Amino acid sequence: MRSSKATIRAVLLLSCPERPGIISDVSNFLVKHGANIVQFDQHTTDPQDGVLFMRIEFDLEDDRHFAKLKGNLAAMAGEYGMEWRLSHERQTKRMAIFVSKMDHCLLELLWRWKSGEIHAEIPMVISNHNDLREAVESYGIPYYHIPVSAETKEEAEAKTLELLKDKVDLIVLARYMQILSPAFISHYPDQIINIHHSFLPAFIGANPYRKAFERGVKLIGATAHYVTNDLDEGPIIEQDVVRVNHRYNEAALKIAGRQVERSVLAQAVAWHLKDHVLVYGNKTIVFA
Amino acid sequence: MRSSKATIRAVLLLSCPERPGIISDVSNFLVKHGANIVQFDQHTTDPQDGVLFMRIEFDLEDDRHFAKLKGNLAAMAGEYGMEWRLSHERQTKRMAIFVSKMDHCLLELLWRWKSGEIHAEIPMVISNHNDLREAVESYGIPYYHIPVSAETKEEAEAKTLELLKDKVDLIVLARYMQILSPAFISHYPDQIINIHHSFLPAFIGANPYRKAFERGVKLIGATAHYVTNDLDEGPIIEQDVVRVNHRYNEAALKIAGRQVERSVLAQAVAWHLKDHVLVYGNKTIVFA
Amino acid sequence: MRSSKATIRAVLLLSCPERPGIISDVSNFLVKHGANIVQFDQHTTDPQDGVLFMRIEFDLEDDRHFAKLKGNLAAMAGEYGMEWRLSHERQTKRMAIFVSKMDHCLLELLWRWKSGEIHAEIPMVISNHNDLREAVESYGIPYYHIPVSAETKEEAEAKTLELLKDKVDLIVLARYMQILSPAFISHYPDQIINIHHSFLPAFIGANPYRKAFERGVKLIGATAHYVTNDLDEGPIIEQDVVRVNHRYNEAALKIAGRQVERSVLAQAVAWHLKDHVLVYGNKTIVFA
Amino acid sequence: MRSSKATIRAVLLLSCPERPGIISDVSNFLVKHGANIVQFDQHTTDPQDGVLFMRIEFDLEDDRHFAKLKGNLAAMAGEYGMEWRLSHERQTKRMAIFVSKMDHCLLELLWRWKSGEIHAEIPMVISNHNDLREAVESYGIPYYHIPVSAETKEEAEAKTLELLKDKVDLIVLARYMQILSPAFISHYPDQIINIHHSFLPAFIGANPYRKAFERGVKLIGATAHYVTNDLDEGPIIEQDVVRVNHRYNEAALKIAGRQVERSVLAQAVAWHLKDHVLVYGNKTIVFA
Repeated sequence: MRSSKATIRAVLLLSCPERPGIISDVSNFLVKHGANIVQFDQHTTDPQDGVLFMRIEFDLEDDRHFAKLKGNLAAMAGEYGMEWRLSHERQTKRMAIFVSKMDHCLLELLWRWKSGEIHAEIPMVISNHNDLREAVESYGIPYYHIPVSAETKEEAEAKTLELLKDKVDLIVLARYMQILSPAFISHYPDQIINIHHSFLPAFIGANPYRKAFERGVKLIGATAHYVTNDLDEGPIIEQDVVRVNHRYNEAALKIAGRQVERSVLAQAVAWHLKDHVLVYGNKTIVFA
Repeated sequence: MRSSKATIRAVLLLSCPERPGIISDVSNFLVKHGANIVQFDQHTTDPQDGVLFMRIEFDLEDDRHFAKLKGNLAAMAGEYGMEWRLSHERQTKRMAIFVSKMDHCLLELLWRWKSGEIHAEIPMVISNHNDLREAVESYGIPYYHIPVSAETKEEAEAKTLELLKDKVDLIVLARYMQILSPAFISHYPDQIINIHHSFLPAFIGANPYRKAFERGVKLIGATAHYVTNDLDEGPIIEQDVVRVNHRYNEAALKIAGRQVERSVLAQAVAWHLKDHVLVYGNKTIVFA
Repeated sequence: MRSSKATIRAVLLLSCPERPGIISDVSNFLVKHGANIVQFDQHTTDPQDGVLFMRIEFDLEDDRHFAKLKGNLAAMAGEYGMEWRLSHERQTKRMAIFVSKMDHCLLELLWRWKSGEIHAEIPMVISNHNDLREAVESYGIPYYHIPVSAETKEEAEAKTLELLKDKVDLIVLARYMQILSPAFISHYPDQIINIHHSFLPAFIGANPYRKAFERGVKLIGATAHYVTNDLDEGPIIEQDVVRVNHRYNEAALKIAGRQVERSVLAQAVAWHLKDHVLVYGNKTIVFA
Repeated sequence: MRSSKATIRAVLLLSCPERPGIISDVSNFLVKHGANIVQFDQHTTDPQDGVLFMRIEFDLEDDRHFAKLKGNLAAMAGEYGMEWRLSHERQTKRMAIFVSKMDHCLLELLWRWKSGEIHAEIPMVISNHNDLREAVESYGIPYYHIPVSAETKEEAEAKTLELLKDKVDLIVLARYMQILSPAFISHYPDQIINIHHSFLPAFIGANPYRKAFERGVKLIGATAHYVTNDLDEGPIIEQDVVRVNHRYNEAALKIAGRQVERSVLAQAVAWHLKDHVLVYGNKTIVFA
């Protein structure tokens, strides 16, 4: 810790059972620790006996007090039954990207990362194919090719976990065409974001564009969600749609869908990285 | 038929197997009968051996030639294997509206009807409840209360069919909370439009807003479709969505959804009445 | 005041210069007065030395304490340099609607009012024409016809002010085709909402749909804003657009525009009535 | 010309004064030359005495007949007073991209080009800065740095014209921050597409995001248009908007705006390259 003070921006995310005065208590706590609140967001499932969610972005004028604030917060959290996460701007999150052969979601993330819209370290991109190596390495990011087949799946996941170990805070499945096992997922609860190429819960599973074409829908969509053991059933972070019509065959739907997949995934990832998202059961609270 | 000529606007809708020169043949046919084409729309499922769809809006300078054109068209249609529909502007379509207790879709239709946006005759509104009688009768439209229960359903449908007989070209289910029997539907193929309060095929069946709330979607939608024997599975005419977030409880979703239900249903009905919609299998071609 | 307590829902809107601990101070104040915060929204123009805005929705378990809370708030506000507004759910706002000949915005407001989406008293509708009398009176709302011409404008406004005096908290210009004088507007600062039939600042002034047609835009819009002395320049509350194309002539643009005018105005009015809107200079903060 | 026949896809764009039977005449002409119509789009400003626009996409079974069809079309066009453009799929259009320092529009175009969504040759990228050389050259595209100052503008344009001469069919200004002279523009009528970072005609000229921030709009937009001598006044091809709120400062508006700039420009360019756009006065007809 340095001897001279510096201002630092921090974000506190928390949830706890509702109780009278809780907002006052939390803001008092922060003020007493020298915090200047910049942005305060709150949501309750029920003001009487529901669950309360808060996101508080604040400046700490003396960053040397951060550790103390964090320690005292742990004590307070115990008393109030809080789940919480506290981070500051210098703790850059580390994000791994998993891809297969399609590059549109990957390149969107990399472009926004390079432009500064997405603030993260990207220690690695992992793929079950070798196709996108050159594109990834041109950004100076290591690319790991880990093939997956029915026989090698367990082994491949073990190898992947080994690579990730202690190196990533978030995994983004950018059109990664493999289903992760429950064992794998259990290592990263609410830390794996997938993009599904439909407006969930419509067209769960494989080939959503074909299903959309066959059903004759007038809008197609994309859904970014946290990955759970139930395929395509995890908490939804963001969704969007784009209008189509009878002129779109399946190939045209795929092209139109790419644009919405890119923007929905990038938005969800940006929100997660900036601590705008809280998970509650199978839903999300997004303080956008 | 009058002895002096008058210009009349007409619409020809047709579908037939693709064959070379078909567009030329149809436009030649119309020109020879004195038609001046105002709007020409065309779609093919496959230019080689698919199905061709056309919508041609044209002015006939001498309305006394309409009957002859129609007769000759029937002959041409036989030769080309066409399905077709020909109507002119003075043949106002007749639309019955079925409602239950909720008034939002009904009132939207009536307001657009009165303002001239929806061009139709409305010979009757039929309801399984009596709640909306006053609202309907204030527009000078007859209101028929036909209660429906599990025991009386067959009888109620028979009575309804009797009322409709030879009087309507289109039935609009404006949040009518009864399921019509296949026998009933068979009387009005592609002539019954329903509004489903979700973005189909998501949330098929009852209580879509509750399901949407439980799933935590970030957009809710509405779908207007033709009614077939498969519940909520008929050809989709129009869909739209509206953005929601974690602050919306089920009641708030219902209120937000009302707006999109109203506009989607009214748009689909307007397109149908102006002969912009063709059904092909379980899909629609909408020449919007 | 009753002798037995009852819970009451209230909303506090306030703005003041930023200062450390202000959120804490305000929430402490509310808690000490028995408030249970239901929804807390906050915005700052600059966390260092900007202006802070808050909207706090809270339950007061004993409504007999409301007056005391209000009195003490006035004292606190002086100290902090706050501007504030405090209201509770039983203080239903009173809204006058001004119309001319077009009914679409008026009827949308009345329909949402009757359905409970818009919560207000409507003591009067005022028009410079007599056309919409029947529609308004069918809702049991008094209709006043006050013609306006260049010569009678001053007199007409005086008569209108007399009618409104002490009876309304909000005036909605639902396609009212007269320009109010600065003298008139000064009586209702930030309390007059107008719907302009374009996406402001595009197409300021008269005939926006004609201008949109001539410019060949691909989207048309509507804008709800507070009325100030600068025509169409007041703080924007809400805007939306709808897609059009080359097939839309001016008449078709007007019809398409009606839908977006209706929804934008109704949304802005609903937000105002529920105290979701704060004005800051020539902008609004909308805690939606 | 080869001695054996091959099928070729072609597009005919034309406009001419309305006259009876014109659709029939044109389709007859095509059929007689062996064309199989795949997609037929038509628009008229007035069926009586307006201007008619057509886009006809057709397959020619024997590509050796293309030249003859084109020659005969020229004769027909003279008779009917047609303006027309005929192209086939093997005549890949050549597109130059002009950029300054911002890369988002450029990279979107390059990504869609590489993915096959945008079908063109890109013989060069020209910039008044050197910043984006590496990004462009990594795609194997030549990059020309032509600095522009008030003093050197004429010379720079002359040099640019020399580079372009006979090499490009379309110039895309992908956030190129220089104003082209009327003399330059006259070489490429309806062949220069610009992206303006606002919803035109709102915020014409410099710094639209600052102006949008100061006006407090609730949506920001982007507009792709053909370049004419009147700054930001040329025919609009495509526009779109994205929702913002009081939390967006000018920097946030710019980031949000980048996404809509990218998609609007790429869409307009794709339509132009596939011959979906016709210019009429200061407007476009887009057969989308």
